[in-house]
Amino acid sequence: MGDGKQDKWEFIRFNGNEPVQVAEEIVREFPLTIFLNGEEFATMVCSPNHLEELVIGFLASEGIIRLYEEIKDLKLDAERGFAYVELYREVDVSLAEHSKRFIGSCCGKSRQFYFKSDVKTAKTITSKITISAEQCYNLMKELLIRSDQFRRTGGVHNAALATSEGLLEVRSDIGRHNALDKVYGTILQQKIPLKDKLIVFSGRISSEVLLKISKIGVGILLSKSAPTDLALSLANDLGITAIGFARENKMNVYTHPNRIREAGIKS
Amino acid sequence: MGDGKQDKWEFIRFNGNEPVQVAEEIVREFPLTIFLNGEEFATMVCSPNHLEELVIGFLASEGIIRLYEEIKDLKLDAERGFAYVELYREVDVSLAEHSKRFIGSCCGKSRQFYFKSDVKTAKTITSKITISAEQCYNLMKELLIRSDQFRRTGGVHNAALATSEGLLEVRSDIGRHNALDKVYGTILQQKIPLKDKLIVFSGRISSEVLLKISKIGVGILLSKSAPTDLALSLANDLGITAIGFARENKMNVYTHPNRIREAGIKS
Repeated sequence: MGDGKQDKWEFIRFNGNEPVQVAEEIVREFPLTIFLNGEEFATMVCSPNHLEELVIGFLASEGIIRLYEEIKDLKLDAERGFAYVELYREVDVSLAEHSKRFIGSCCGKSRQFYFKSDVKTAKTITSKITISAEQCYNLMKELLIRSDQFRRTGGVHNAALATSEGLLEVRSDIGRHNALDKVYGTILQQKIPLKDKLIVFSGRISSEVLLKISKIGVGILLSKSAPTDLALSLANDLGITAIGFARENKMNVYTHPNRIREAGIKS
Repeated sequence: MGDGKQDKWEFIRFNGNEPVQVAEEIVREFPLTIFLNGEEFATMVCSPNHLEELVIGFLASEGIIRLYEEIKDLKLDAERGFAYVELYREVDVSLAEHSKRFIGSCCGKSRQFYFKSDVKTAKTITSKITISAEQCYNLMKELLIRSDQFRRTGGVHNAALATSEGLLEVRSDIGRHNALDKVYGTILQQKIPLKDKLIVFSGRISSEVLLKISKIGVGILLSKSAPTDLALSLANDLGITAIGFARENKMNVYTHPNRIREAGIKS
């Protein structure tokens, strides 16, 4: 019920310095491509439940339909992640005013980068950086302390470039992608070498966030929040150590734990 | 330092059934339009700090540049929210593969709907629904309880269609916009009358969320999270009662408090 089939992922949970191998469910991030009158229209990522309602609501949100009755036919191929919508009227899906809005960013309306052009810029990370569990906890504590200055008003995300010793550049934004982009821009502008660096982040590890980390080119993403299954597949493929739920003295190391000193496991 | 100038907003904070008039800072949501080689390229909303780094990082994230040196000139008009970027090379900003990716969704990469086509579909809400503070607390409690079934794995947003008496349809998704779209789709499909309905939501009240609420056509948005200043301006203009930080027996009523029975104030 709910999010559909959940896969169990094996990963390492740290409690203090103690690594324990566990297997738990990871929230799914499911790519759904909508075809409108036979033409590819939009790809979003979503939780695979209530897909028909999602498609209807999405088309209404985008101003394509106003009433359910405008839809002549709606077929779902949930296996492959395709939705085929036929409207009674014709739609020019190439209309700039539309096409620009369909494909998006985070929070669900994400282009399925993995299968598209982004795969060209995504690079496998070979960084040899290592870090201790203790250092991870300290970095996250530092991010939270520094964030407090910014988040008086609530709802701001924070991203920081760090070494294992401390945070170097902290950026905040209402958009978690913007916070990461600000860090990325700083790196490019100041030509900061990345071999011994990681990213500390307050936001969720979605596929899009993970791809951004790969583009930036750091080996470790340390986040306070939950990952998605698609992001972890990508992290696995791209050689990135993805750490989630880093809070107090606990954290989950989902992929490439070899960069965590206490993990004692070759990935 | 930080998010730039913060405006104080006057609103009503409820502690239990007691309304108190307060004035506090609201996080800013700032529209920034990027021109690339003289052509309009993308509009995002962001926190107005480190804008130059944001532009550089955004262009790199989108695959437009790889090095800072590819930028010939970057001028910011922070007052008007414009960034003018000149690259050494030519870029076809109309390229489908690109144009589709620039404009997005929530979390910062949002098209500035207010000034664009969305203003056509956004409707002023005249709903006469009223609700008590107690009923608001109960609805949010119900959402949290119902959410627990879905959020075992963390990081899922929830949206529900409700009457003042209880939740009718609860939808969850990794994307907060998707959660709302699923509710919207349900409303359209089942032709649910909205006069006596409100939306209960776990996510932040951004301008894009607010516009979606206006399109759906309900008079009250009850959220657990923080609003942005742009969203509140829109809520004010569009006649929507925006309630944020609804937790336990507290909540902030930011706009059109006349729909809350205890408010005792005509908006």
